[in-house]
Formats: sequence, C-alpha cells, structure tokens
Amino acid sequence: MTDSPRITGVEITPVAFRDPALLCAVGVHEPYALRAVVEVTTGQGLYGLGETYADEGHLRRLRAAADALIGMEVHALGAMHRRVAQVLDGDTGSDGHGLTGMITTSSTVDRVFSPFEVACLDIQGKAAGRPVCDLLGGAVRDSVSFSAYLFYKWAGHPGAQPDGWGEALDPEGIVAQAQRMVDSYGFTAIKLKGGVRPPEEEVKAVLALREAFPEMPLRLDPNTAWTVETSLWVARELDGVLEYLEDPTPGLDGMARVAREASMPLATNMCVVAFEHLAPAVAQGSVRVVLSDHHYWGGLHRSKLLAGICETFGLGLSMHSNSHLGISLAAMVQLAAATPQLGYACDTHWPWKTEDVVQPGALSFTGGAVRVPRGPGLGVELDREALARLHRQYLDCGLRNRDDTGYMRRIDPGYEKKLPRW
Amino acid sequence: MTDSPRITGVEITPVAFRDPALLCAVGVHEPYALRAVVEVTTGQGLYGLGETYADEGHLRRLRAAADALIGMEVHALGAMHRRVAQVLDGDTGSDGHGLTGMITTSSTVDRVFSPFEVACLDIQGKAAGRPVCDLLGGAVRDSVSFSAYLFYKWAGHPGAQPDGWGEALDPEGIVAQAQRMVDSYGFTAIKLKGGVRPPEEEVKAVLALREAFPEMPLRLDPNTAWTVETSLWVARELDGVLEYLEDPTPGLDGMARVAREASMPLATNMCVVAFEHLAPAVAQGSVRVVLSDHHYWGGLHRSKLLAGICETFGLGLSMHSNSHLGISLAAMVQLAAATPQLGYACDTHWPWKTEDVVQPGALSFTGGAVRVPRGPGLGVELDREALARLHRQYLDCGLRNRDDTGYMRRIDPGYEKKLPRW
Repeated sequence: MTDSPRITGVEITPVAFRDPALLCAVGVHEPYALRAVVEVTTGQGLYGLGETYADEGHLRRLRAAADALIGMEVHALGAMHRRVAQVLDGDTGSDGHGLTGMITTSSTVDRVFSPFEVACLDIQGKAAGRPVCDLLGGAVRDSVSFSAYLFYKWAGHPGAQPDGWGEALDPEGIVAQAQRMVDSYGFTAIKLKGGVRPPEEEVKAVLALREAFPEMPLRLDPNTAWTVETSLWVARELDGVLEYLEDPTPGLDGMARVAREASMPLATNMCVVAFEHLAPAVAQGSVRVVLSDHHYWGGLHRSKLLAGICETFGLGLSMHSNSHLGISLAAMVQLAAATPQLGYACDTHWPWKTEDVVQPGALSFTGGAVRVPRGPGLGVELDREALARLHRQYLDCGLRNRDDTGYMRRIDPGYEKKLPRW
Repeated sequence: MTDSPRITGVEITPVAFRDPALLCAVGVHEPYALRAVVEVTTGQGLYGLGETYADEGHLRRLRAAADALIGMEVHALGAMHRRVAQVLDGDTGSDGHGLTGMITTSSTVDRVFSPFEVACLDIQGKAAGRPVCDLLGGAVRDSVSFSAYLFYKWAGHPGAQPDGWGEALDPEGIVAQAQRMVDSYGFTAIKLKGGVRPPEEEVKAVLALREAFPEMPLRLDPNTAWTVETSLWVARELDGVLEYLEDPTPGLDGMARVAREASMPLATNMCVVAFEHLAPAVAQGSVRVVLSDHHYWGGLHRSKLLAGICETFGLGLSMHSNSHLGISLAAMVQLAAATPQLGYACDTHWPWKTEDVVQPGALSFTGGAVRVPRGPGLGVELDREALARLHRQYLDCGLRNRDDTGYMRRIDPGYEKKLPRW
C-alpha cells in the first residue's frame, strides 16, 4: 500500500468578483464579493481545491491553520480538525463568516477547517479515481435541485452601469426577476430574500409570486428583520403559501415563540449555525428546518453529520448559500448528492455572478438542477488565469471585509442597522 | 476514471464457535456462539468481509438483502441502505440481534445493512490502497483500548470438559478471572457482566475488584436485572467506585429515574439501540453514555453519526460487544480509530473465544489495546479452511437461534427469565 498523500503546500488566494447591488436586511451587497481559494498540494503532484470567506480575520486564521497542516496525510481529517482547534485556541471572531447569526469557538474552528477538508477530499477522490460524493456514502441522486434566489435590488451600483437585471423594489420587479431566472435556469422553487421592504410589501411580493407561479414552492427569508409579533402577522398572511419561513426573528427563544403559532415550518441559518446550538434548538422547538452550509458547519463530513442529526431529531434539511464561485458549487453538489436527508431545493447565488475561478463547463443548470460531476474529486479544475485576474481585482478593489451596512451608509447616511427593524 | 467496483456476488456463511458457559441476566451462553460471515465479491476480483449475527430470521433477511444488492456499486452505501429498507419493508423482528433491548423497523434495517456496509468499505479500502479508518476521517489513535470483560461462569458446560478458565461464582472467582485476563492481555479497564447473582453479591464482587485493581476503571452491567429501587441501592453502595453503571433497569423512564439520583453516569446498549431512541433519551436524560455497536447501528458510517450525535447532545460514547470473531474486531478497531468521541475502553468478548475465521496475526493485544492495522481495507483476510470448519460446526451443532434462557432451563428446569429480577 502506498502512503496517504501528505500536504506539502497550501496556497490561499483572496479573490474579488463583481456582485450586483442586492439589498438585504443589513444593507446592500458591495460591488465586489470576496472569497478565498484554498489550494492544497501534495508530494505526489495531486492538488485539491476549497473555497471560503475572505475577510481579514478569517484569512489570518486560514494561514495559521495552513501552516499547521503541512506534512499531514490528506486522509487524516479528524486529526486535522483537532490541529486546527489547537491552532485557533481562543482566536474566534465573526469576521469572514458573512452571517449575522451567533458566533462560537467551535463554529470558528469549523469555518476555518472547512476549505481544507474539501480540498483534501478533492485529493482523496483524485487519488482513488472517485468523485467526492463516493467518499461520502455515494450519490442518492444524479442531479441537485436549486431554488431561484430573488433579491430586492437596485438597477446598478450608484455611479456604475446597470447590471442588466433591472431594478426590483416592488412585487412587479420581483416577479419579473423570478420569471427571467426561471426562464434561464429552469428553477422549480423560489426564495425571496426579504427584510428589505416593510413586511406588508414583502407579503404582497410573495402573493404576486404565488399568482405568477402557482405550483412552485416559495420561501421568504427576512434575516431576522421582524419582531415576534410581526413574524406572526406575516405567518398568518402567508398561511398556506410558504414552503417555509426562514429566520423571521432573532434568537432561539423568539423563533420558538413564532414556531408555536405559525402554520408553516420555520427554517434557519442564523439561530442554528453550530453544533452546540442544536440541543437547545431541539429542546425549545425553535425550528423545523435547518439550512446546512459546509462552509461553516466544518466541511462535507460534518455537514453529513448535521444531516443525520436533523433526521434523528425530526428536523428537515435544506442548504444555505452566500455569494460563491464554482469550487463551492461543486462541493455543494457533491455533498447534496450524498445526503439523502436533503428535502428541499438548495440555495445558490450562482445566477448573480459573472466571473469565476474554475474552468467553465463542469457545472451547468438544467431544469433548475446541476448534474453531479462523475469525474474524480470535486469535478472542477482551476482556471489559473481567471484566478490571477480575480486576485488582481481583489488587490485593486480595496475591499477587505464584507460590510453591507457600511456601504449602504455611504450611499444613504441615515441608514441604520436594526434587527429586528419591524 | 474507472467505475466503482460493482457487487457481483455475496456469500453468507453461518458459523459456530465454541463459547464457555458464561452466565448472564437471562441464562447462560450455549456451547457454541453463532455468527454469519458475509463475503462480498466484485467483478474486479476484490472481495470484502462483514460479520454479523446468525439467527435464522436474520439469515433470511441477510439473504434477501444480498440478492437486492447484486449489481450495485460498492461506493453507493446510501443507495444500498435505501434498498435494504425497501426489501425488508415491514419484515422486522428481534431474531439475530442478540440483545434484549427494544426492536424497531429502522434498527432491523440497520442490523441487516451493517455487514454489507463493512464489506463494501473493506473493498473500497482495498481499491484505494487505504485502511478503512482512512475512509472514515482517518485515525485519531494508533491503537484501540479494550476492557477486560468478566463473567460469572461455570467451570465448564454440563457434561463437557472444563474450559480452563475455572468457575467464577463469587468475588474471589471474579478477581482471579480478572487477574488472569489482565495478565494475559494487559487490559487497563474492567467490566463485570452482572445481573446473575443477587445485587449484594455483585456489589461485593465490584468492591473486591476495586481492592485488587485500585487504579482501574470499573463497570458493572446487570442487563436490566434490577428495579429502580435496587438500582439506586447499588448506585449508593458503589458511589465513587464505578466509571459507569450500565443498564441497571429497563426502559428510558426507569433509567431516567435512576439517573436523577445515581452519582455515576448511566450507560446503555439496551434502552438506546436505534436512532429513534435518541431524541426521547435526550429529552428524559435517561443516560449519560451510549455504547455504540456497528452491528446494529447500521455499520461504520452510521456509528460515526451516532458518535457525532452523542457529542452534540453531551453524551459520552463507549462500545458494546457480543461474542464475535476477527472480522468484527477488525471493524471495531477501524471504527474506534476514526472516532474521536470514543472516551472509554471498548468491550470485547475476544478472550473467551478459541476459534476464528480470519488468518491469525493481524490483530493482537498489547497493553489491553489492539494496534490499528495499516494495510488496505479492514486488514484481515479469511482463513477459508477455518471458515469451512466453523461452518461444518454450525451444521453439526444443531443450534440455530441464540437462546440463553432455553439452555439454562434444560439444565435448571426451574429457571425463569425475569427482568427485572431483583
């Protein structure tokens, strides 16, 4: 038997890619989204890819972890997780996770560990001649369905060219956006990012979507912009309309209060974002659906663990997305393929992006779904010219930490971050 | 990329191996223990091994599952689990599991699926040139510690030669047995199978062990032979003496009542034996330690899931054993190596057995621990002559279903199965 390939080098490359002026509960997306590409190399000439957040604190932690992983076997994932925990001991923080939920020590370790685990699985798959899904128990589906992810948005960033998608600030704009997205990608489920307009307007937008797409599952995600009372009002207005209502209000307690009276399931990627949140969430009955995300749940194996926990405790499973590139999509597809518990179309920001770091063609949408790549590893290869270009863009754009609120305040000085707002 | 190896054949061979007259809460071990060896073959010439129970109902289900798995890829474990569930739909039963705990539909599926999963992981490991632990996240320890598993016992089966271990029916006999086992294997933890003698005698035996082995963790497992009141009396008598008290009384309710007052952790392999028992056990606080067992928790991946659930919900993890052969020990060692959550020395009946179906030398005890094999797959190979001999022994011995109570009643017609007894 040959030895397990050992890690001989790690390249961490922050990149920036153009992002439309998508509105959210705490502001507006900046003109560039940041990601870090993690490339793990081995003595045998194999390399593996991971993709993660790129805020400065996160980059610093990634580099500390990378140094500590040199020399380890790519199969030693449990030992790597321990080593990352040792390296980060006490060094936690919210930077780089792109979420507004709760931050914990363990979730910082999982967030930093994740891209290394994905890259090592990519290498393991290449070494064994198997797609990553085969390392996770094998595919239970040939393709993975995603939802159309709608945003309230401006026509373009202030002072810049319109992005071509048009403005969407009312029900008509949202329906038009959905129609274009469904026409282009074949999506069969729709999610609206809410928390932007007053709740009664967002209710109207969802009802307009229901009328335009009578058969499609619909979701609404205001990112905790509402009080318990407002959440319950929305739940009543949208009774029978929503597949699930995502993070209407902050905290396990507030969610539990809404859950007791709302007719539709509550989902979350904000009040349950680490393993230590699961026990209290189960005890309180705060949610009925958890949105997994391998970027902060500690990689693909630990996302499978989350899936098994959800099944064991009677929770549904969906999948969350931040703005991402092709490495992340490949990992999401490999994971989703091997996760029988996944009961919903996954989220993705994919249609909003115009640039990438992977060679085109490996991942494409048909009927709103991505066919699971059957090649070894993740199934995507770096486009090194594109990587260099997006890294140059990172250096030039000046953005170093995601700050939707700060950007909004530069445009509208009176804007204040407030959760819940209504 | 080559295709994943596909299953072209499955051989299921029931075997019988000599077993001493070990006493337990429901009778006495029969002269032969039964196991089934599962050999999965592929078109590429690779084969994989699994080991499981051999009672008739279980053998029937194994054969039905085997037929349904022909042609599937050895990496398609999630799809195999689904197919086994379809094949067994509604065909559940307690036969073959060798436990006195609760039986459910899902645990029947997991019990039947397990040896196929282990055999497929053996093949996956051989195909990739990796030990099975590397397919489970990699080893976090080089060797796996086991406990000395003591039994009250007769000197031999009635009418047969003594087995050489001597009689053990009082504290002196138990201490002598422990001493011999510790001397021979180097064990650093001790478990006494109780529920055999009146509780006050078993308390004296544990106290004698404490005196003889002042530093060793001690456990007592009466297999639910006691009422809640008796359990609490024993817990008081052994306050500060036991590492954990295993299954003192039946059911989640009873265990929860004991757990509220006992000073030591309660452990179980009887009231939590399937994933559906975890939520109520957590809600009631019935136990603080779960004994995993890949033979009924659905294989190695699902045992890793159990480990992750235990960690997430604040439960400790140990490992259970029935009478078993070398294939099972190899699987237990590979799993334990890759399970960081395992916090206790594992159980094994290994010292009680004098025959095996695997080629000798791959697994041996030093300091009470087994070094994790580093060869591809499980690390053990079939001894086909031994397999044929133990299969012949199965055919000749006439035993077809484990029946400790029936055997005891043939020796002592007045014996009655009664749980709790005291």
